[in-house]
Amino acid sequence: MTVERPNEKRRPRVVIIGAGFAGLKAARTLANREVDVTIVDRNNYHKFQPLLYQVATAGLEPDEIAQNVRSLFRRAKNVRFHLGTVEAIDHDRHEVSTHDGCRLGYDYLIVAAGTVSTFFGIEGAEEHSFPMKNVPEAVRLRNHVLRQFERYDKDPRARQGGRLNFVIVGGGPTGVEMAGALVELFDILQRDYKDIDTSKARVILVEMLDQLLPGQHPDLGEYAKKVLERRGVQVCLETAVERVTDTEVHLKGGETIPTRTMVWGAGVKADPLAEALGVELAGGGRIPVRDDLSLPDHPEVFAAGDITAAEGADKKMYPQLAAVANQQGEHAAKQILRRIEGGETEAFRYRDYGTMATIGRNAAVGEFPGGIRVKGFIAWLMWVGLHVAMLAGFRNRMNVFINYAINYLTYDRNARLIFDMIPVPEEVPMEVEEVDEEITQSLEEIADRNE
Amino acid sequence: MTVERPNEKRRPRVVIIGAGFAGLKAARTLANREVDVTIVDRNNYHKFQPLLYQVATAGLEPDEIAQNVRSLFRRAKNVRFHLGTVEAIDHDRHEVSTHDGCRLGYDYLIVAAGTVSTFFGIEGAEEHSFPMKNVPEAVRLRNHVLRQFERYDKDPRARQGGRLNFVIVGGGPTGVEMAGALVELFDILQRDYKDIDTSKARVILVEMLDQLLPGQHPDLGEYAKKVLERRGVQVCLETAVERVTDTEVHLKGGETIPTRTMVWGAGVKADPLAEALGVELAGGGRIPVRDDLSLPDHPEVFAAGDITAAEGADKKMYPQLAAVANQQGEHAAKQILRRIEGGETEAFRYRDYGTMATIGRNAAVGEFPGGIRVKGFIAWLMWVGLHVAMLAGFRNRMNVFINYAINYLTYDRNARLIFDMIPVPEEVPMEVEEVDEEITQSLEEIADRNE
Repeated sequence: MTVERPNEKRRPRVVIIGAGFAGLKAARTLANREVDVTIVDRNNYHKFQPLLYQVATAGLEPDEIAQNVRSLFRRAKNVRFHLGTVEAIDHDRHEVSTHDGCRLGYDYLIVAAGTVSTFFGIEGAEEHSFPMKNVPEAVRLRNHVLRQFERYDKDPRARQGGRLNFVIVGGGPTGVEMAGALVELFDILQRDYKDIDTSKARVILVEMLDQLLPGQHPDLGEYAKKVLERRGVQVCLETAVERVTDTEVHLKGGETIPTRTMVWGAGVKADPLAEALGVELAGGGRIPVRDDLSLPDHPEVFAAGDITAAEGADKKMYPQLAAVANQQGEHAAKQILRRIEGGETEAFRYRDYGTMATIGRNAAVGEFPGGIRVKGFIAWLMWVGLHVAMLAGFRNRMNVFINYAINYLTYDRNARLIFDMIPVPEEVPMEVEEVDEEITQSLEEIADRNE
Repeated sequence: MTVERPNEKRRPRVVIIGAGFAGLKAARTLANREVDVTIVDRNNYHKFQPLLYQVATAGLEPDEIAQNVRSLFRRAKNVRFHLGTVEAIDHDRHEVSTHDGCRLGYDYLIVAAGTVSTFFGIEGAEEHSFPMKNVPEAVRLRNHVLRQFERYDKDPRARQGGRLNFVIVGGGPTGVEMAGALVELFDILQRDYKDIDTSKARVILVEMLDQLLPGQHPDLGEYAKKVLERRGVQVCLETAVERVTDTEVHLKGGETIPTRTMVWGAGVKADPLAEALGVELAGGGRIPVRDDLSLPDHPEVFAAGDITAAEGADKKMYPQLAAVANQQGEHAAKQILRRIEGGETEAFRYRDYGTMATIGRNAAVGEFPGGIRVKGFIAWLMWVGLHVAMLAGFRNRMNVFINYAINYLTYDRNARLIFDMIPVPEEVPMEVEEVDEEITQSLEEIADRNE
C-alpha cells in the first residue's frame, strides 16, 4: 500500500534514501522550502562515520557519534523520516518500496545509500573478519576485543594461538586510525589487567600497496608508518591476505598470523541498492551520473555521496569522502529546487578543502590544496577541532568534547563495557484487525472497576 | 582445569559471585586487606539497577549506569575480576566452576548473584513480555518502544491493535518509575512525530494488590496513583494478568487489552545459582542463612543481597533493596575478616535509612524511620541527589548529572536511538595449540620483508 502524507496543496515530493552525510545535507538544504521531503533510512539515527573506530576501541560510546534523525529536523515542518530499508525503485510509478511493504511516491529522488563492505572474494574474509561500517559492527568489535583480554587473563589455555594479535587489513584512514587507537587501548588496559602483560598484545597493519594512506602524499604515509611503528604497530606494506579462518590469517607470501581478530578496513563497494536503479553501474558498483548528479535517463533521480560515480574535470571519480558527500548532497538538493523553479541544472564541482587522518594521541596528518601538508601535534589539534565541530547536534558535540578532554587528561577510556544486546525478532504481521473504538471501550471498563 | 593465581605467600582466597551492590560492597570492604579476592560476574560491568528504567525510556544511555568492574578495583592490588557465569559450587573441593570450564578455588565464598525475573506461570508472559532486569533487556525495551512509534507513524495499518498501548505489570517501584518515565517520553516524542498525536499513547499500570508501592505507607501509594493518573497513566489496582499473547494482555476479570508491549515489573526470584548450593531454599528460591549471613552447614560460605533469605528481629525476610544488599555485602566481608583473625562472627542487623521512589519529573515519595514521609518536589530533589551520589565512579556521576540537568532544562531526552546489536557467537574451542614462539617468528618474518 502507498503511504500518502496529508498534503493540502500538492507540493513536489522529494524522497532521500540514506541519512548519511549526503542525505542529511540534502535534507537540510531542502528544509523549510516548498517541497515535501522524506528521508528513508534503515536506522533512526545519523552516524558520524569518521569516529566509528573510536567506538570500536572503547573511546566513545555509540550515542556520542549518533544523532536521532527526527530530532535533527524538528524545526523543519516539511521534512519527515521513514524507518525502513529500501528494496526497490520503480521509475515508471515514481515510487520506492521498503522491506515491510510500504511504498513512497516521489517527484524527485536522491539516492544516497552509501557503501557496504566488500571482501574481494578472499576466502573466509566475510565470515571471519570484523568489518566496521556501522554502529552494531563497531560495538561487536569492541566487545570482541575486550573479551580477548578477559579470556587471556583468566585461562592460561587461551594465551596461545595469537589471542592478543589484532590484524587490521587496509592501510587507509580507517586502518591507520584503528591501529593507532588500538595500541593506545592496550596501555590503558594494563591498569585493568594486573596479572598479564598487555604489551604482549600486537597490532599488525596489512596494506596491499606500498604506502599507508594511499590517497595522500607519500611523505604523510611514511610519517604515519613511522609514528605507528614507534608506538608498537607492525606495519606490513605490499602484503595481501589470501585466506582467513577463525584462528588464522594466511598471507599471500605464505606466512600465517595466528589471530582471533581480523579487522576489515580494506574495501567498500556501493550499496546493492544501486542495482535497483536498472542502470549499468560504474566501478565499485557506483551509480554513473551526469555532471549535475542526475541519472542519464532519469532527470528526476539524483545520486549523492559514496554511492555516486561522479567524475571531476580530471575524468577521475571523486574519492569517497564525507566532504564530497556533503557537497554532493547539497548540490543535488539545489538542482531539484532549480528544476522546480524551471531553471537549468548546474554541473557539480568538488571544492577540495583538504583531507586529514589521525594516527592516535598527538599525531595526525593533513593535506590541503596548494600542496600544503601538515603533520604531528598541530595536525592533531586541527583534526580534533574539525571533528568536534563537524559532529551534528549541540549535545553530542559537548559530550564528545568532554570525553575527549577527560580521555586526554587521564589517559583513560570510559567505554570498556561489554554490552551483549538481545536482537528483537521481526514482528509477525497482524491477522486480526481491531479498531480503536474497541480498545477504548475495553480500557474504560477496566478503569470503571477501579473507581 | 583450575586457575591458580600466583600467590607467594598463601593468603585466604575469597570468591565473590556477582558484581551487584552486595558483591561490590563486599569486594570494597576486602580491598587491600590480607586476602585474595576474585569477583566473578557474567558481565564485565556493575549496573546501577535503580536507574535501569531510565535506559528503557531513553533517558540515559547504558554506559551512564554501568561501570567497568576492573577499573573500580584498579587501586586494590588484591582484587581480581573473572568474566564468567558460575554453574556449580563444590563444597568439598571449595571450588566454583564457570560455564567455560574454569574452576576457582576459595577459602571463603560470598554468593551475591541477585535475582532473575519470574512469571508465576502466567501463560505467554515469559515469551511475550519485556522484563527489565539487565542492560540488554532495558535496551531491547527502548528499541521496541521507539519502534512502535515508528510503525504507527508510517503505516496506517499499524495504527490499529493497540500499537501505542503500553501495559506495565507490577505497581512496585519499578512499575511506578517506568510508568512515570514513559508518559513523559510521549510528550517528548510529540516533537519528533509531526503527523501523529502521541497523546494517543497510553500507559496502563496493572497491580494485583490494592495499592501502588505495596511496601510503603498507603498514603504514598495513593499519592503515586494520583500523580500518575493526573499525568495520564491508567492505574488498575486489584487486577491480575491471566494470559499474554504477542498482541493482547488478558486480565483475570475477562477484559482484554490490545498491546504490543507488556513490561514485566511484577516478580523476581533468586538466581537459579542458589540451587547449586545443595541446601533447602526459602521463599522465592532465596538462600537461608544464619544470623551472621553464613550457610548453616558451611560457615565458609556467605550469602548477601537479594539472593539471601536473612530475617530481621521481626522474623520477616529483609526486603530486596540496594541498601540491604550494600549492608549485607559489607557485613559478610567483615565476618570473613573476623573469622580469619580468629574472632567470632556477629549477627547482621539492617540499618534502615528509608526508601524512596520517583514518580517522574518533580514528583517522588520517600519513607524514613520514625514514620517520616515525604512526597512531591522536595522528595524528588532528594531522590535525584541520592541517586547521583550513589552512582559508582566519578565519570558516570558527572555524565549522569549533566544529562539530568540538560533533560530537566530542555524537557528532552538524548537517547532516542534504536541500536540493534549483533550478538557474538560463542567461540569454538581451540583444537590446535600453538606456542608463542612460533607466532613471534612468523611475525618477524613478515617484518623482515618490509625492511
